[in-house]
Amino acid sequence: MNALDDVIESFSRLPGIGKKSAARIAHYLLQQDQSFCQRIARDISVLHEKIHPCKICGSYTEDEICSICSNPMRERNILCIVEQAQDVQTIESTHEYHGLFHVLGGVIAPLEGIGPEQLRLSEIVERVRKENITEIILATNPTVEGDTTALYIQRILKPTGVTVTRLASGLPVGGDLEYADKLTLARSLRGRIPF
Amino acid sequence: MNALDDVIESFSRLPGIGKKSAARIAHYLLQQDQSFCQRIARDISVLHEKIHPCKICGSYTEDEICSICSNPMRERNILCIVEQAQDVQTIESTHEYHGLFHVLGGVIAPLEGIGPEQLRLSEIVERVRKENITEIILATNPTVEGDTTALYIQRILKPTGVTVTRLASGLPVGGDLEYADKLTLARSLRGRIPF
Repeated sequence: MNALDDVIESFSRLPGIGKKSAARIAHYLLQQDQSFCQRIARDISVLHEKIHPCKICGSYTEDEICSICSNPMRERNILCIVEQAQDVQTIESTHEYHGLFHVLGGVIAPLEGIGPEQLRLSEIVERVRKENITEIILATNPTVEGDTTALYIQRILKPTGVTVTRLASGLPVGGDLEYADKLTLARSLRGRIPF
Repeated sequence: MNALDDVIESFSRLPGIGKKSAARIAHYLLQQDQSFCQRIARDISVLHEKIHPCKICGSYTEDEICSICSNPMRERNILCIVEQAQDVQTIESTHEYHGLFHVLGGVIAPLEGIGPEQLRLSEIVERVRKENITEIILATNPTVEGDTTALYIQRILKPTGVTVTRLASGLPVGGDLEYADKLTLARSLRGRIPF
């Protein structure tokens, strides 16, 4: 086990990187300048020091409050609920949403021992009451766990009277009816919109 | 540009990792212990210090002479010529070859300005003369550049009288005639062996 194997081993533990990709990356690193490696190493090592969850929405930031929560130009009456911090970036990349976010930090998954109390759920009710929120967009994934969590949030929000919406589920743009799975097709039928 | 973006940017410069994979990895790192990140960072930063080319064959090692060149159990009369240091590991993983290696450090590619003098070619003739080599296996890739380089090596080795062989090119095991490209099929016909 030498230093090269260590790097291969380290990289192959990362998501989406197998043994072969890890070896390719390690050899690539050796062919670059040492400064290239030093930069990556430094970036990785300061990550935990610098980045932490935003006190309000739970997405990652270097400051106490993230750039979205502290932006006065955002629509402050709409709140989009997502599972993970990275989902915030994904939705931001559409440039379609201008409201605020709330990161759950996961989904209700009884089989994995994740119940409602492990997620940032009670904070949603609190935010709706304090921040004058008029619409909640449920943007959890269209999976069994995501749907369950969305239902649960809808239930706990009922007493507040806030409007609750869910991201549309249906055919992906550029997709083909032939290759759509039955569940997706059924949902796109059920959720059809006036043309 | 915050620390998270820095990590995403760094990772997306590595081969085979796009922007999305890089973001996924960066968020994964944040969800792990800090010690996990520190370990990867340390592994990457010491890579250049610890690993360098073997003085004899040119493959990567922590010592002056690599573990293959210094292993008395290897067949010391067979020399396998490969393009890159990682090819040594790939061939070793077959457990089919027990001779020595020689890493060229690339292939002859005039369009990229890589001529014979940039590669470790003259060392091959030297090794054949000094080390009592009886067979040279040309294991450059079956590409235009790999084939050109193999031809060049065959030519410079002619005066030494050493036996020169080339890795067989043909259908991959488990492959299908129908899906083989014409060049591969033509080569597998030309290189057919008695059954």
